[in-house]
Amino acid sequence: MSAAPPDPSPRRERLWRIIFLSDTPVGRAFDVVLLWLIGLSVLTIILESVDEIRLPNVRFFNVLEWIFTVLFTVEYLARLWSVRRPLRYALSFFGVVDLISVLPAYLELFIPGTHYLMALRVLRLMRMFRVLKMAEYLGEASILLAALRASRRKITLFLTTVIGIVLVEGTVVYVLEHEANPDFANIPQAIYWAIVTITTVGYGDVAPITVPGKMMASIIMLTGFAIIAVPTGIVTSELGRAMGRPLAHRRRCNECGWEDHDTRALHCQHCGVKLDA
Amino acid sequence: MSAAPPDPSPRRERLWRIIFLSDTPVGRAFDVVLLWLIGLSVLTIILESVDEIRLPNVRFFNVLEWIFTVLFTVEYLARLWSVRRPLRYALSFFGVVDLISVLPAYLELFIPGTHYLMALRVLRLMRMFRVLKMAEYLGEASILLAALRASRRKITLFLTTVIGIVLVEGTVVYVLEHEANPDFANIPQAIYWAIVTITTVGYGDVAPITVPGKMMASIIMLTGFAIIAVPTGIVTSELGRAMGRPLAHRRRCNECGWEDHDTRALHCQHCGVKLDA
Amino acid sequence: MSAAPPDPSPRRERLWRIIFLSDTPVGRAFDVVLLWLIGLSVLTIILESVDEIRLPNVRFFNVLEWIFTVLFTVEYLARLWSVRRPLRYALSFFGVVDLISVLPAYLELFIPGTHYLMALRVLRLMRMFRVLKMAEYLGEASILLAALRASRRKITLFLTTVIGIVLVEGTVVYVLEHEANPDFANIPQAIYWAIVTITTVGYGDVAPITVPGKMMASIIMLTGFAIIAVPTGIVTSELGRAMGRPLAHRRRCNECGWEDHDTRALHCQHCGVKLDA
Amino acid sequence: MSAAPPDPSPRRERLWRIIFLSDTPVGRAFDVVLLWLIGLSVLTIILESVDEIRLPNVRFFNVLEWIFTVLFTVEYLARLWSVRRPLRYALSFFGVVDLISVLPAYLELFIPGTHYLMALRVLRLMRMFRVLKMAEYLGEASILLAALRASRRKITLFLTTVIGIVLVEGTVVYVLEHEANPDFANIPQAIYWAIVTITTVGYGDVAPITVPGKMMASIIMLTGFAIIAVPTGIVTSELGRAMGRPLAHRRRCNECGWEDHDTRALHCQHCGVKLDA
Repeated sequence: MSAAPPDPSPRRERLWRIIFLSDTPVGRAFDVVLLWLIGLSVLTIILESVDEIRLPNVRFFNVLEWIFTVLFTVEYLARLWSVRRPLRYALSFFGVVDLISVLPAYLELFIPGTHYLMALRVLRLMRMFRVLKMAEYLGEASILLAALRASRRKITLFLTTVIGIVLVEGTVVYVLEHEANPDFANIPQAIYWAIVTITTVGYGDVAPITVPGKMMASIIMLTGFAIIAVPTGIVTSELGRAMGRPLAHRRRCNECGWEDHDTRALHCQHCGVKLDA
Repeated sequence: MSAAPPDPSPRRERLWRIIFLSDTPVGRAFDVVLLWLIGLSVLTIILESVDEIRLPNVRFFNVLEWIFTVLFTVEYLARLWSVRRPLRYALSFFGVVDLISVLPAYLELFIPGTHYLMALRVLRLMRMFRVLKMAEYLGEASILLAALRASRRKITLFLTTVIGIVLVEGTVVYVLEHEANPDFANIPQAIYWAIVTITTVGYGDVAPITVPGKMMASIIMLTGFAIIAVPTGIVTSELGRAMGRPLAHRRRCNECGWEDHDTRALHCQHCGVKLDA
Repeated sequence: MSAAPPDPSPRRERLWRIIFLSDTPVGRAFDVVLLWLIGLSVLTIILESVDEIRLPNVRFFNVLEWIFTVLFTVEYLARLWSVRRPLRYALSFFGVVDLISVLPAYLELFIPGTHYLMALRVLRLMRMFRVLKMAEYLGEASILLAALRASRRKITLFLTTVIGIVLVEGTVVYVLEHEANPDFANIPQAIYWAIVTITTVGYGDVAPITVPGKMMASIIMLTGFAIIAVPTGIVTSELGRAMGRPLAHRRRCNECGWEDHDTRALHCQHCGVKLDA
Repeated sequence: MSAAPPDPSPRRERLWRIIFLSDTPVGRAFDVVLLWLIGLSVLTIILESVDEIRLPNVRFFNVLEWIFTVLFTVEYLARLWSVRRPLRYALSFFGVVDLISVLPAYLELFIPGTHYLMALRVLRLMRMFRVLKMAEYLGEASILLAALRASRRKITLFLTTVIGIVLVEGTVVYVLEHEANPDFANIPQAIYWAIVTITTVGYGDVAPITVPGKMMASIIMLTGFAIIAVPTGIVTSELGRAMGRPLAHRRRCNECGWEDHDTRALHCQHCGVKLDA
C-alpha cells in the first residue's frame, strides 16, 4: 500500500481510513462490498462479450456498466482526495490498476471495443489478499515469491536463451519449409511455430510437411525436452531452498557453533547445552 | 470408514461385519465379489456407450444393467440397515458414492442419457485399497498425500493466480483477435483458449490468426513456461520433505522419547542427554 | 546376460565365448559386426516402409531382408547351440528379443504386414552398452534405474489414480458432449480424449464444442496441471536421493559415530580423528 | 575468447585491443556499435522475409543487406588480420559464427533462399554477455551450465533411450494404423508422430484413427508421462547440487586450505585441525 499516513483534516482522515485500511468495521465493510462490486463488474463484462447474452439485453448491460464505471470513478477520486500524497498513490501499482479499471469505459466513447479492457479490473481483486487477512496464504505466497525472485536472474537468462534458440530454429525451419509450406510463409511465422513447439503447446495450426522440415522439428522437440526441464529445475531448487531456510540455520548453539537445529530444539544436537530461545 | 461399531443385535452385527470389514473369510469374499461386480458393471456401461456394440444387444445390456442396479441397491440398503448410524454413513464419502452408483439408473427413467453417470461406480473401486490390504501401497500413498496436503495451500494460491492470469490474458487476446477471428467470438471462449495454452495442452481448435494475436500468444507461452514450473517445484519440494522425514525420525531419545533427530545428532534436541549411536 | 558358463566341449566353449562375451578380439569383432548388421537391418525396414523408396527396388529389399533374416537366424541357432542352458537363454530377455527379431520374417509368409515388427530388432542394440563397455554410462544408468525402481510403486499408484481419473472425466464429458459432438460418440473415445488432455499432448483431433463441455475441459486441464507435477516430483526426489546416497553416509567415524563425510574426507568432520579408509 | 595475445606490431595490437577486448573506451564503443548493427541486421532479415514488407521495398532491403554484409566482412577480415593466430580464431566458436554471419550473403548469389541463414547472426549477440560485463548473469549461467554439464551423460543416455522408444512405438503404431490411416503411410512418419506425442507437443497433424491405434497411443501417452519426468528430475537434482556447492564451500581450513566443508563441520575433513566457526 503506497498510501501515506493521513493528514490532520479529520474528515479526509476518516475517509482514508475507511477506503485504504480494513481495520475498522466500516473499512472492512467497504472493502468487502468493493470486492463484490469488482467481481460482479468483471462477470458483467465477460457475459456481455457473448452476443447471445448481450444482444437481447443491450440496454440492461449499458446501464449496468455505467453504474459500475461511475461507482469506481467516484471511488478512484475519493482515493485521490483522501490520500495525503495523491501523485504517489496514482503512480503506485494499485493506483494504476484502479485507473485502468475505469478509463476504458470513457475511451470506449472514442475507440469502440476497448471497453473490454475493463476486465483488467480483475487485477483489483488482488486487494482481496489484504482484506481477507489470509496470513498463512501470504506466508505461502512469500515463499513462492522468494523462490521466483531468487530464480529471477536464472529465468531471465533462460528466456533470453530460449528466444535466441527459437530465432535460430525458426529461421532454419523457414529455409527448409517456406517453398513447400504456406504455413511457413515468413520467418516471424516460423518463430511463432518454434515457440509453439518448444513450449510443447503444439497447436498444429502451423506444422512442417516436408521430410527435412519434420526431421528438424523432431530434433527441436527432443532437445526442447531437455530445455523444458531447466525452468522447473530452477524453481524447484530455489523453492527447496526457500522452504528449507526457515527450518535450517535458524538456531545457533553458542557453545559449539552447531547451526542446524529445527525450530523445536531445546538443546544443542551436538554438545547438548541448553539453547537460548 | 465412517461406519460406527455395530449395536448388540447379533444378526445386524454379523451383516455389518461382513459388509463393512474384510477381516473374516466371508467378509473378504464379499468384498472381492463386490469389486468384481463393480468392475464388470463399469465395463458394461463403457461398452454399452459404443453403438456398434449396444445396438445388436440392446435387450442383453438392459437386463445386465438392471441386474447390477438391483444388486447394488440391495447392497446399499443392507449397508444402511446394518450400520448403527445410517445417516452418518449415508453422508460419508463412500455413502454418497454408493448412492450415486445406483441413482442414475432410476433417474434414467425420467432423464434419458444420465444413466451413463453410473460409470462413476468406478469410484467405489477405491475400496480396493482397503480390501487388498496393500499396506506398502498405502504407505506410498500416504507420502504422496502428505506431499499434496502440504502443498495444498500453495497450489490453491497458484491456481487462483493462474485463473487470474488466464482471465487477463484471455481478455487481452480477445480484444486483439475477436474482429478478425471467429474462434475468439467472446471472452469465455478466449479464456478457454488461454487455459488450453497455458497448460500446454494446445488443441489448436482455437488459435490466434492476427499478427498481434500471435505475438501476445507467444509471450503467454514463454511466460507459461516459467509458470508450469511452479506446481512441479512445489510438489517436488514437499515430496522431498515428506520422503526425508522418515530419515530424520530415525533416532529416538531413550530419556524423553523425543523422536525428530537428524542423522548427525549426538544429543537429544529436547532433554540434551547423549543419544546412543 | 543369462548365459550359463560353457560346458567342457572346447568347440562349443570357443563359440560361446565369441558370441556371448566380448573379452576376446574375435568376440569383440563379432559384437561390433553384429551391432552394425542390426543397425542396417533396422534402417532397411524403416526405408522399406516408404513406398517411394520400396516400389522401385522391391527385389533389392526382399533380398536384403532375407539376407539379414538368415544371418540372424543362424546367429540365434548358434546361441542356442553354444550356450549350456539353451532354455534359460531362450526365455531370457535377450533370448526373447533375438527370437522376435527373426520370427516376423517367417510370420510374414502367413500374415502380411507383420514383418515390419522386425524393427523391434532395434531392441537388440541394447547389447551395445555391454560391447562399448561404457562403464560410466552404465554408472549413470544404474542411478537412473535406481531412481525409477525406487519410484516404481509410487508411479504404479499414480498411474492407477490417473486411469481412474480419466475414466471418470471421460464419462462426465461424454455425458455433456455426446449429443452435440460426434467426436464424443462413445465413452472409450471420451476416455481417449481425457488421456490426450491430461497428459497435455492435446492433438485436438477430439475437442469439446459445447459450453459445459469446454468448462469441464478447462477444469480438467487446470487440475491436470497439478497432476502432471506428481511424477516429476517423484522421480526428482528419488533421483536426488539416488545421487545423494553415494555422497552422504558413506564413511562413518568410529570415534564419535558422525556419519556424513564426503568421499575425500581423511579426518572426521566432527571430532577430527583419522578416518580409516 | 580464443584470441591470442597481440604481437609487438603496434597498429595491429591497437586494432586487436579495440576489436577483441572492451576494456578501453574505444573498444567498448566498438562492441556496443557492433551489437546494435547485429541486432538491426537480424531484424532486417526477419522483416525482409515478410512479403508484405519486402515487396514494396525490395531495393531498400537489398541495399541495407549489402551494407551489413560489407561491414561484417570488413570486421571479419580485421579480426583475422589483427589476431596473432588467425587460424586458431577462424576455427574458434566465435570465429565460425562470424564467418557464418556473412557467408550466406555471398552464397545467395549461387543458391537463392540460403541468405536467410544470415539470421544465424543472432548467435553473435552472445558476445553481449562479455560486453555488458553481466558478471552476476555469468555467475548464474555458470551454475546452469555446470548443472547441464553434470547431467550431460545422463541426458545423452536418456535421449538415446527415448530414440529407441519412439522407434519401437512408431513401428508398432505403424503396423496397427498404416492400412486405415494415410497419416501413417510409412515408419518415418510414424516415428515423427511418436516424437510429437512423447514430447507432449501433440500437433494433431498426425493422429491415430483406429481403435487399436488409439489404445496404443493412450499407453504411449501415459508412459510418456513418467518419461517426461526424467530429464526434469536430472536437471533439478544436478541444479540442486550445483546450487548447494557454494554453500558447502563456505568454510575454508586455514591449515591446509581444504575448502569443501559442509556448514556443520567442526574439524577439517582433510587435516583434522579445528575449524574456526
